[in-house]
Amino acid sequence: MTNVLLTFPIKERFRNALKDQFPKVNFDFSDTIEGADEKEVEILVTYGSDLTEKVLDGLTELKWVMVASAGVDQMPLAGLGERGILVTNVSGIHKTPMAESILAHILSLNRALPIIQEQQKQKIWEKMKSNELKGSTALILGPGSIGGEVGRLLQAFGVNTIGCSRSGNRHDGMHEDILFNEIENTLPRADYVISVLPSTSETRWLLDESHFEKMKKTAVFMNFGRGDLVRERVVVHALQNEQIAHAVLDVFEQEPLPSDSPLWELSNCTVSPHVSALSAKYVERALEIFKENLEMWLSGDEGYKNVIETDRGY
Amino acid sequence: MTNVLLTFPIKERFRNALKDQFPKVNFDFSDTIEGADEKEVEILVTYGSDLTEKVLDGLTELKWVMVASAGVDQMPLAGLGERGILVTNVSGIHKTPMAESILAHILSLNRALPIIQEQQKQKIWEKMKSNELKGSTALILGPGSIGGEVGRLLQAFGVNTIGCSRSGNRHDGMHEDILFNEIENTLPRADYVISVLPSTSETRWLLDESHFEKMKKTAVFMNFGRGDLVRERVVVHALQNEQIAHAVLDVFEQEPLPSDSPLWELSNCTVSPHVSALSAKYVERALEIFKENLEMWLSGDEGYKNVIETDRGY
Repeated sequence: MTNVLLTFPIKERFRNALKDQFPKVNFDFSDTIEGADEKEVEILVTYGSDLTEKVLDGLTELKWVMVASAGVDQMPLAGLGERGILVTNVSGIHKTPMAESILAHILSLNRALPIIQEQQKQKIWEKMKSNELKGSTALILGPGSIGGEVGRLLQAFGVNTIGCSRSGNRHDGMHEDILFNEIENTLPRADYVISVLPSTSETRWLLDESHFEKMKKTAVFMNFGRGDLVRERVVVHALQNEQIAHAVLDVFEQEPLPSDSPLWELSNCTVSPHVSALSAKYVERALEIFKENLEMWLSGDEGYKNVIETDRGY
Repeated sequence: MTNVLLTFPIKERFRNALKDQFPKVNFDFSDTIEGADEKEVEILVTYGSDLTEKVLDGLTELKWVMVASAGVDQMPLAGLGERGILVTNVSGIHKTPMAESILAHILSLNRALPIIQEQQKQKIWEKMKSNELKGSTALILGPGSIGGEVGRLLQAFGVNTIGCSRSGNRHDGMHEDILFNEIENTLPRADYVISVLPSTSETRWLLDESHFEKMKKTAVFMNFGRGDLVRERVVVHALQNEQIAHAVLDVFEQEPLPSDSPLWELSNCTVSPHVSALSAKYVERALEIFKENLEMWLSGDEGYKNVIETDRGY
């Protein structure tokens, strides 16, 4: 029997479906990873943060960690790599809710929805300034699965899309592709600067003051990747000095965002509490990916979905 | 000389461009339509509401009214029709800002942006319920230029679109097309019921209690057409009794919306003060259509853009 421990919490109906589909697998649904060292766990399904180096030391039978999240930056990747443990994630499942969130914020700002909401509270019937998205330009940092979906949708609205990646390769959803070192030269053209980059050694603190100085005064900066893309004080400075028009942040240098952060009260900043990937369909989709990979695992096939290269971090 | 009176207010640079492009036309830019009867006006460019039956009586030379608006329901259409006066509007220019506004509201509700905005004010870092647009179904009343653009964009998000028109003909942007008398049967399938219908004898009070009873409890009703599609009290009743989840209204039975309307304070209603068509590019686009038609007028060609059939009202 293959022993699978799920600390990823799922509902009864999902548990039963797993047991029905895989009668030869021993599923252990647990609230906690404590005691896992005595369970001869071969496969661990987790949100990620419970797998510390110490826990990993005890799991001598572990061969595969399925992370039910997109970010693996909090995982003991080095230890997993050394032990040759397979690591997979569910990165693909975020693309729909995240792209919808990003488009929601862009359109909402353009069409003045926050102002409409405020006016309604005061029963004010008044026209306001309102822009069109059509014809604008977006620079998308990280044109992978999520960024590509953002690009595809923006293109439907008539937006010119520029993808920025380490390779500079051609990406779906982009009219143009540039390299990381071409960001500064490209920023003066961008009405939207949207990051969906993961946290890696190359993306950490990738943006600094000089980048915000190059942005349009009318630009909107959106960080939906990881909070260590840019120092909070750099964004605060740019917003306070109106170097850019607005920032929409779903991720932060420190999460939850501390209550003394100036970002909360800046009228040109939208603070979203890391919710852009949320979806009522999340668990269902994560389990679909897990089940596909588990089929392959049991039959000895290769070609797993969403394999993480532990040395690269994504 | 052809005498053109513009009560449609435009900036100096637009005035000069018109005069340069049409040196043989006599342009009169006026704040008011008063005194127009002494000007031998052949062509009138107006937002519409200043052309009353009485004013029309005095304009004996009038041959063409260009309405710089989409709605012509406040125009003296019968009188214009009797006199054989050409009536054109600018309906096409609204499709981009209006479709963007409609998508903005849909995405904003799905991705919980109003809650994010409220939480930020109170510095609350908390996850909330959030849905996906993908896979839902939209019923679009009025699948013309604007409705078709809404349908095209919704389809990009993976939404199933159903167009509803008097003809029931196949329309762009729709997966399916139905007739007005099929609305009730179709409502139980719709997650979004979106009207962009003009005000005509056929659309006036088209929806009533029975329609709202057929809608899903989770449905969102959106009126971006005209306020006489449904009685305000019908919508208020449906919202107060949670027959539907939310209403987004850009048009109202009475505009401006009276301050004692219950719609202002309903938490499941968004009151938008008839701003969905606003755009910084409005005047420019309206003049483009006017200039194309004026070229034809002067050269004696036919095939004018956006001709209104005065007996039909659109």
